[in-house]
Formats: sequence, C-alpha cells, structure tokens
Amino acid sequence: MKNTIKKIAVLTSGGDAPGMNAAIRSVVRACAYHKIECVGVYRGYEGLMEGDFKQMNARSVKGIINKGGTILKSARSLEFKTKEGRQLAFENLQKEGIDGLVVIGGDGTFTGAMIFNQEFNFPVMGIPGTIDNDIFGTSHTLGFDTALNTVVDAIDKIRDTASSHNRLFFVEVMGRDVGHIALNVGIAGGAEEILIPEEDLGLDRLVESLNRSKKSGKSSSIVVVAEGDKIGKNIFELKDYVDENMEGYDVRVSVLGHMQRGGAPSCFDRVLASRMGVKAVESLIEGQTNYMVGLLNNKIELTPLDNAIKGKSKINLELLRVSDIMST
Amino acid sequence: MKNTIKKIAVLTSGGDAPGMNAAIRSVVRACAYHKIECVGVYRGYEGLMEGDFKQMNARSVKGIINKGGTILKSARSLEFKTKEGRQLAFENLQKEGIDGLVVIGGDGTFTGAMIFNQEFNFPVMGIPGTIDNDIFGTSHTLGFDTALNTVVDAIDKIRDTASSHNRLFFVEVMGRDVGHIALNVGIAGGAEEILIPEEDLGLDRLVESLNRSKKSGKSSSIVVVAEGDKIGKNIFELKDYVDENMEGYDVRVSVLGHMQRGGAPSCFDRVLASRMGVKAVESLIEGQTNYMVGLLNNKIELTPLDNAIKGKSKINLELLRVSDIMST
Amino acid sequence: MKNTIKKIAVLTSGGDAPGMNAAIRSVVRACAYHKIECVGVYRGYEGLMEGDFKQMNARSVKGIINKGGTILKSARSLEFKTKEGRQLAFENLQKEGIDGLVVIGGDGTFTGAMIFNQEFNFPVMGIPGTIDNDIFGTSHTLGFDTALNTVVDAIDKIRDTASSHNRLFFVEVMGRDVGHIALNVGIAGGAEEILIPEEDLGLDRLVESLNRSKKSGKSSSIVVVAEGDKIGKNIFELKDYVDENMEGYDVRVSVLGHMQRGGAPSCFDRVLASRMGVKAVESLIEGQTNYMVGLLNNKIELTPLDNAIKGKSKINLELLRVSDIMST
Amino acid sequence: MKNTIKKIAVLTSGGDAPGMNAAIRSVVRACAYHKIECVGVYRGYEGLMEGDFKQMNARSVKGIINKGGTILKSARSLEFKTKEGRQLAFENLQKEGIDGLVVIGGDGTFTGAMIFNQEFNFPVMGIPGTIDNDIFGTSHTLGFDTALNTVVDAIDKIRDTASSHNRLFFVEVMGRDVGHIALNVGIAGGAEEILIPEEDLGLDRLVESLNRSKKSGKSSSIVVVAEGDKIGKNIFELKDYVDENMEGYDVRVSVLGHMQRGGAPSCFDRVLASRMGVKAVESLIEGQTNYMVGLLNNKIELTPLDNAIKGKSKINLELLRVSDIMST
Repeated sequence: MKNTIKKIAVLTSGGDAPGMNAAIRSVVRACAYHKIECVGVYRGYEGLMEGDFKQMNARSVKGIINKGGTILKSARSLEFKTKEGRQLAFENLQKEGIDGLVVIGGDGTFTGAMIFNQEFNFPVMGIPGTIDNDIFGTSHTLGFDTALNTVVDAIDKIRDTASSHNRLFFVEVMGRDVGHIALNVGIAGGAEEILIPEEDLGLDRLVESLNRSKKSGKSSSIVVVAEGDKIGKNIFELKDYVDENMEGYDVRVSVLGHMQRGGAPSCFDRVLASRMGVKAVESLIEGQTNYMVGLLNNKIELTPLDNAIKGKSKINLELLRVSDIMST
Repeated sequence: MKNTIKKIAVLTSGGDAPGMNAAIRSVVRACAYHKIECVGVYRGYEGLMEGDFKQMNARSVKGIINKGGTILKSARSLEFKTKEGRQLAFENLQKEGIDGLVVIGGDGTFTGAMIFNQEFNFPVMGIPGTIDNDIFGTSHTLGFDTALNTVVDAIDKIRDTASSHNRLFFVEVMGRDVGHIALNVGIAGGAEEILIPEEDLGLDRLVESLNRSKKSGKSSSIVVVAEGDKIGKNIFELKDYVDENMEGYDVRVSVLGHMQRGGAPSCFDRVLASRMGVKAVESLIEGQTNYMVGLLNNKIELTPLDNAIKGKSKINLELLRVSDIMST
Repeated sequence: MKNTIKKIAVLTSGGDAPGMNAAIRSVVRACAYHKIECVGVYRGYEGLMEGDFKQMNARSVKGIINKGGTILKSARSLEFKTKEGRQLAFENLQKEGIDGLVVIGGDGTFTGAMIFNQEFNFPVMGIPGTIDNDIFGTSHTLGFDTALNTVVDAIDKIRDTASSHNRLFFVEVMGRDVGHIALNVGIAGGAEEILIPEEDLGLDRLVESLNRSKKSGKSSSIVVVAEGDKIGKNIFELKDYVDENMEGYDVRVSVLGHMQRGGAPSCFDRVLASRMGVKAVESLIEGQTNYMVGLLNNKIELTPLDNAIKGKSKINLELLRVSDIMST
Repeated sequence: MKNTIKKIAVLTSGGDAPGMNAAIRSVVRACAYHKIECVGVYRGYEGLMEGDFKQMNARSVKGIINKGGTILKSARSLEFKTKEGRQLAFENLQKEGIDGLVVIGGDGTFTGAMIFNQEFNFPVMGIPGTIDNDIFGTSHTLGFDTALNTVVDAIDKIRDTASSHNRLFFVEVMGRDVGHIALNVGIAGGAEEILIPEEDLGLDRLVESLNRSKKSGKSSSIVVVAEGDKIGKNIFELKDYVDENMEGYDVRVSVLGHMQRGGAPSCFDRVLASRMGVKAVESLIEGQTNYMVGLLNNKIELTPLDNAIKGKSKINLELLRVSDIMST
C-alpha cells in the first residue's frame, strides 16, 4: 500500500561533498514531477530544530547541478543528539505539514535520522554524501569520484616539480579512517607506495621499498598517505624519519587539505546524485522508510540505514595488488 | 595447465581514447613484474605487419599514465583484413619470439584479433578502449569516463553563454551508434532534452517539449544530440527546423568534435586501465586466450571476444527516466 | 570639480564574456565603498528601455566573481538604435534617480553609450568586455585571457588525438574580424600555421608550408584558423582544398564554437575586472564621462569612447614572427 | 658588430616553474631557425660542471610546450659558487664548442650567470622563470600567470566548503619574500584580507577587520597569507590567535604547497616563453651578453643581469586598494 506523502523536506548534514547540490536538485525536481511539495532545510539538523525552512520548486534549484558545496549549508549538530532537540525538530516538521525527510550526508547524519525515525516513526531516507566513500551499501558515495579527480590533478602537478628536482614527496589525502581515496589516487597518480589504515607497511619496509625503487632507476617518487594512516605519528614525523634513514632524496610533504572537498562535481557524481534523489523521493512515496539509497552493481538499491551505519565499507584488495605491480 | 608465455606484444588500434597510455603502461609493468619480455607495436595492426616493434621495460612507460592519446600511435588497417596481411603479422610475431598479444581498441580491433587467433591459434587478449562505451562485456570502456567529464565541462561553458542570452543550444556529442555519452552528459549538463539513436522522439514532440519548458519559465535550454541520432538529417537541419517552428528562442549549434577524444584520463580511467592491463597479462600467462577483459559489477572479468563483438551494449533505461524527471 | 553622483546603473550588453560578472561585482562594491547607490539593469539596453532594474548592494554580488556569463543577462538591442528607444531609456533613468551609467561590452555597446551621452548629456563610462580583444585603448579586454586558456586546453586535447593518428587538424577559433585569439593560441598550441584576417597567406603557400613540415618529420599538425579569415570560403572548403592538394594526411576540422565564451574567468580577468570596475565608478564620481577604462602598460587608463570605437586594435607583428620561428 | 655564435647551450636552474619547457623549446627552435647548434644541459649548473649535455634539434622539443616542470631537470648548485666549479663548467663548454649560454631561472641563477660571464667573458643571457614574480626588469616571470590560475582554482574549491560550513580559512600561498601571488589571488579569490610581507596589518587590525565583515553579514571568509608574511610566527599560530580572539567562526588552515609549481602552463606563459626564448637567442647572435630578457609594457626588452638581481620587483599598490574596496 502506498503512503500518501504530500510534502518532503531535504537537508544536507556533516562534511560537505561535491554532488550534494545535484542531489538537492534531484530531490526537489522529483517532488515537482510527482506533484509533491518540497521544503529545503538550512544547516542540517540545526535548521530542522530552528525551523529554518524554505519552500522550493523546480526553478529554485536552477543552475546548481555543477556547483560544489551545498546551497542548503551544512552543520554538525550536538543538540540533535538530545531527545529534546529531536522533539523540537519533529514539532517543526509537523507544523509545516512535512511527512517525509531526505537526509544527505555520512554515517553521523544517518545515525541521527535512524534514531529520529525510531522515536517518531517519521519516514526518512538517506543519500550517502561524503568524499570518503566510507559508507556500507553503496560502491560510491557522492563526491568520491570528484575528489579522486581533484586529488589526481594535484598529484600530477606535484609530480611535475618532483621529477624536475629528483624529489620524494609525501602527499597526504583525505579519507578519514579508510584508504579508498589514497588507494585510487595512488594508482592513478603513479605513486611508489600507498599508506592506508587498512594495511600496516611499517617504516622499515617503506624505506626498504623506496631504496629499491631508487636503485631501479627512479629519480623521483610520490608516496600517497591516507590521513587515517598511523605509520608515523603524523606525516611530518614520517618525513623526518625517511630523511634520516635514506640518502639521495630531497624529501617534501604536501597536505592537500580542504580543496579536496570542493569543486564542480564530475559527470559521474552528477548522474549518481540525480539517480539517488529520484530513488529517495519515490521510495518515500512507495511507503519505504529508514533506508539509504546506494549504488550496487550499477543499480540504485535500498539498504537499511542500520546496515549502512554498522556495515564496513571495505577497500578492494585487488587494487593493493595492482598498485604493487604498477610500481615495478 | 599454465602456458609458458615469455614475450608479450601490445598495440593500440582504432580511434584513440584517454586511458590507452595507462593501459599500455600497465601491460608493460605487469610483464616486468612477471619477468616476461614486452614489445610495443606501433600504429596497431599496421605496425604488426611492418614489424614496427619496440622493446619496452618498466621505465619505457614512465610519465605516461596521465597523457591522452597513445604513445604507440593508432591506425585503422585495411590490409590486416586480408589473409596475406595477417600472415605477415604472424611471421613478424614469430620472428620476434612473441607468444602473446594484447590489443587495446574497440570492436573492429577485437574482430581482427579474433580472426587472427582463429587462423594462427595465437594467444590474444583484448582491452576495451573507446570513448563510446559501445562494447558488450564491460560496464565502462577506457576513455568513456574521461570523455564524459570533458563534454560536461564544455556544456557548462556553453550554458554560461546560453543563459546570459536566453538561447537554445543543440550540442552534438560523440558516441557512434549508441547514446551512452549523450545520456550521461545530458543528465549531468542539465539538458532539456537528450536525443539518442535508441529512442525516436520525433521532431514534433521535441518542439512540443521545448515549448512546454519555455512556458514553465526556462529562459535558456540545452539539447544534447548524440552523433548517431537520426531525428533531423543532421544537427544543422535540426536547428533550422526548430528555428522555423518555434518562437522566442535564438537557436545555436555546437559540434564538440575531436576534443572529446583527448585530455588527461580521469582517475577512474587510470585505475581501470591499470587493472585491465594486469588482468590481460595474467590471463595470457594462465593460458587464457581470445577474451576481452572488462569491468562487470566493479570486478575485472573475462568475456569471450566473440560475445564482446556480437553482444550489444545497452543504454540504461533508468537514465532516460531520470533525465525526464530532471527536466521538470 | 567633482560631480555629485548619487546612483549608478550598470549593464552588460552584446556578446557575453568571462569576467563580466567580476566587473559587475566590482562596480557594485565600489559604489558601496563610496556610499553610492547601485542599480543593475537586465538584458543591456533592452532592460534600460523597459525599466528592468534591480537595486544592488555589496551582498547582491556575493559568489559571482568566478562565474562565467553575466547575472544581468545580455542582449543586442535594435530599439536602442532609435531616438525613441534612447528617450525611453533616459526617462527610466531619470525616474529612478540614476545619474551615471556603466556599460560593459564591446564596440556596439560603446557606440550606443556614446550617442546616448551626446543626446542627453548623461554621464557614461565603458568597460571593455569581449573575448575578441578587438577594442582600441586596452591591451586586454575582459574575457580575452580566459578564452585563450579555454581554447589552448581544447587544442591540447585535439593534439592528443591528432598525434596518435598522424592527422592534420584545422581548428576554427573565435575573434570576429581580428586574429588576436588565433595568434596567441596558435603559438601556445604549437600550431603549424595560423590563419588570420590580418595576413593573407594564400592557399598555395599554406599547402607548401604543410608539405615542408611533413617532410621535416612532423607526423601530425594543427592549423589554427581565425573565424574572420577568408583564405577558403569557409573552414570546410579549406579542408577540402587541402585534402585534394596534399597527400599523406588524414585532414579533419574542428569548430570550437560557443564554449569559448564561457567558463570561470582566469585570475587575470578577475583582477582586471576588479580594477576596471573601481576605475569606472571613481571616474564617474570625479566627473569624467564618455570614456572607456582600459589596461595600458599594466595601468588602468581612460580612453575617450570615440577613440575606443574608431581606433583599431592591432595584432602584435612580433607574434607572427615568433609563430613562424616556433614552427621550425 | 655581430658575434659569430655557432652553438648555444640552455639550462634550467633553481625552483622549476610552468613555462620552462616552453622556453627550452623556444631556445632550441630559435637556434634551429638561425642554423645554430643547440645543446641542452641537465640539472642546471650541476650538469654544466659534469658535462651532462645533450645535442638538441627542433624535433627534440616536440610535445613539451604544454608540460609543467623542465625536461632538462633543475637543481641548486653549491659547487658552482666556487671558482673551481665555474672553471670546470667553462672547460666543458669550450670542449663542446659552445659559445653562448641561456639560463632559465630566478635571481640565484642570474647571479651565477653574471659571475661566470665576468670571470670568463662568456656570453650569457637570462630568462626569468619562477612562479614568484620577484625579478626586476619584467612585469611577469615565467610561471607566474599559471600559478595564479592554479591557486585561484584551489581557493574556489576551498570557498565551496567554507561557505557550506560558515568557516574562516587561512590559505597560505607561495611567493617567497614578495606578495605578488597573494595579492592577485586574494583579489581574484574574493579574499576578505590579504596578508603580504610588504604591508604589516597587525593581528589586532586583522581581527577587527574580520569581526567587521562578520557583522556586515558575511558568513564565511578566506584570508590569503603570503608565505613570506610575518604577521604570526606561522600560519598555524595565526590561526590559533584568531581562534582565541574571535567568536562564531570555525577557523581552518590550508597550505597549498608544491602543487602551485606544477601543471600545464597557461596560454600567457606559453606565449611569453616563446617570445623570450627567441629574444634570448637572437640577442646572443647580435653580440649582446649579460642581459635578462623581460616583458616591459608588453614588449620583450633587455635588462642588465646586474639590475635584474639588484632591482626590487615592487607590488602594485593600486591592487591593495582594489582588494580593500572589493571586500566591502
């Protein structure tokens, strides 16, 4: 039996990611297509508790598909972690006549939505938006593909100067506790080594490997380090260790930082966002709740929010092997 | 039982695509990793027949992973379609002690490889390299993802000027007989309509749709036209028809052309190329022959060349629907 | 003696160019800085005659410095060429209490402004915005530098495929009647020949030159053709001629089209726009009128609109010679 | 009287910059055009002392105009600062029959060349290649324009995430002791404040300015900090100070690092490099020596190396004022 959803709210929460605007646009237009009202909520759960809402129609999301960031702004909310905060949010939604909520974000965002759903039996649907790709139930989170291209472009530039000067660069990339970004950009950037949290190479073996590659005739090298990797205390101490234990390289560090989160989304992320937004809205209409939409084997599928949060997004071990072979 | 492959040749043939160099690099490095010799063949089957070979080692492919085009050059060969041509090629391979061949290209390339394999029982392995994504047995061909981003970037630019002047643009994109590129960039570029060979919209319905969107308040529009679409005789006649049958739009045409084939490959294409090259070499080593390596459900799998050629790469009908909803 | 300007209007007219938004932003913020009111006029002179005005303050132009196109939209107006049209515009300006007008555009735009100034003694100031760089009194028009980078990026991509296939490409670039874009991108893109309106190479000498370069060992070539060049009837007939009169090349054509007008402005164009906007506003405040602001020897200077229109923007002959030497 | 130069050597030294390859290409092709031999020297003055030379012809520099870095590699040499080192270099040049030297680099490079010229009366010519634009006698050094675009692109990305989260970012950019990069990207990136070595804003006034902009309704801000600025001990302590003395902002730091040195050169840098290379070679042929070629008022002019080193490249004070007005 179909639910009689009449008004859907959409918000972005947690760290922003390219493709969030494209997802907002898709939610809004899917609502318009199905003659459902749509409301944008500013600053994630903060705006939900403050009633910071904006009526949106198909034209409100004109020209945003190619913009990084999120026009609805994002925030991390402590208050929504309290019962009182969520009560406030529920009352605001009721007051506005909203009967479905689409949240775009990562696992923190989904945890909030799931608890909210359990407490108030309020229909919620999650869209995975984070560059880190650390969500179970989707092969790709929104923003991951764009971030990969942004990082690879930066590494290409660093390689220009590395190879002109016979330098060794340690390049730190984002990814929180997982090595998805590091692993992919490491292969694509032609890195000598890739240091990820999932694998403990060890300082000795790192130096050994770098020495071997130097002997094999490589005059410059790039080592990609995931921010979650714990090989050195941090990337600067890692550099110092290698500086002391290797000869013949001028060693440098580059921490790519927040530029990884911005920029126009790639074609892949725009299409994925468009597909996910439609699926989220139509799932709510069909009476589904408490799911995340995700990309599985190139199809958009639903995964219970609970699984999405508790499951672990695993790195592809084949990529580790490919990386090893590529640095021959 | 494992074959005792000792020397592998690699060539690129047909239209070039971003990622071909990354695939060459991967084949060469996978050979080095497995202590197999590797030979590059220039200008595809032409070079095979002329014996235009070059010994390659891991260092020969330094610095090419991010380069568009193909360092081995490409060509379309009529002579290789003759028995005499293929005999010549076989003799050159034998003379050089080559016992396995990796071909990077599209269906024409694979047809040549398959016939060659049948006639001389010579181990061959195909890697799908074309921006058109028109090969069965892989969700993505090499270069497709890069071309999507190149085209979307161009459409973003065209939209800047379209919306400044309230113009309607017909943008022709590549894709041969299939609409993969058009469909994806149409969604990502926020196109009003997408004209693809797989679907016959008809001129009347096109004009009707454009009129409807104009009435709904859109002041500018982009229509993406796949080069294989037959709605008008060609895109210029299509423009003339719309010019005559619609009012209030300044209609323009942009044929994006060959820039779609070039440029630094995306992260996705570099990683895919690296994975495919390894799989192609290791499959030959394992005694496999006459297959294409492809990406299926995010895994690298083998598909018989025969199927890859005869099968049809179908567009995702869900995307058509998403496009329709997005242009609300 | 200083004028007592209290309210300035700004409009964009003619073909749009990257940097126009940055110039609008600068005019608006310079007004805010000097405590002057500012009004945006939509669709150029059309909006002036229709009274399509919008009050703007410093926050109205937030986030537009990096956007292509023009948020005020642009148009070409026939009605403003009539006395009645200009009378209407004058009345609208008076009604709104506007006492100064900044127009951003090319020579057509300036001609309109100059006549308007003469007829109504209304203070006007011009900012040169066009990718063609065909305005006298400034070494760079807004958008020229961005367009150069856009075109060079496209030519780099075309070269990838040209050199993979040993092809000869004719690439048509914008520039109206002058060869500024062609000359610069020809050098930067490593073109074999550059065909510009200012120089008549002749078909025979073109073929001769291409034959010579082929003999010298070049396997692929790019010829940049300015849209205003008249060597063949058009670029397709030029291709046909070369096809018939040269051997050994696969000849192709690429017409880059309107993507040249869009895209995020370069750093240079953003800084130039910011400087020009300030100068335009402050010149009006100082009582100047009927001038264009321009970049001369890296300084922002005023040129009478009359000179800007009648003067001829000349190509740098040194560049022709450099191009010749580079294609050695 | 014209010198009878028969063989010219070219080298790159010091920090690499985009456009160096385009300059090498220009020197080599200008030599070919004038029927002079040309020799590439690897790793700057190091290679000169080791005799690490390579004969180059017009085809040797094929396909490098759009590549970042330097194919001749670069290095900083201590040994060349000794009389013995320079003697060695001179002997190598004589042995090879080289009678002119073009050095591409910054002031350290020019100092070496000038001393070498004085000691051995050896004809030298300098080309300014550094992203910092800190050379007297040229309005633009090679690589400056490219670096500006690279940095602005990164700032645009950072702004996406800054404005989604209402954050304040301190972005550190290169530029050694001068503020050229910071000043230009600050204006183009819409920075709230620009901190450069040439102007001491002071911590109090910085906080005051940021508070004022917050009150005026700006929810996020970017402050560009030149690496040579001394306002805080370093950018991280600057962040800490602001964190402690301001409320309502989430403050972050991004150090852009070495990616600023790489990437395909802009059209401007490629054209400039081509012009400079020709002028350097032709000036040596004409018997000039001990000069730097530079861009002055859009013309390529010679400046004595001595002046280029001792003169000070000053920032444009007008830009400071424009920046101030733009952050209204």
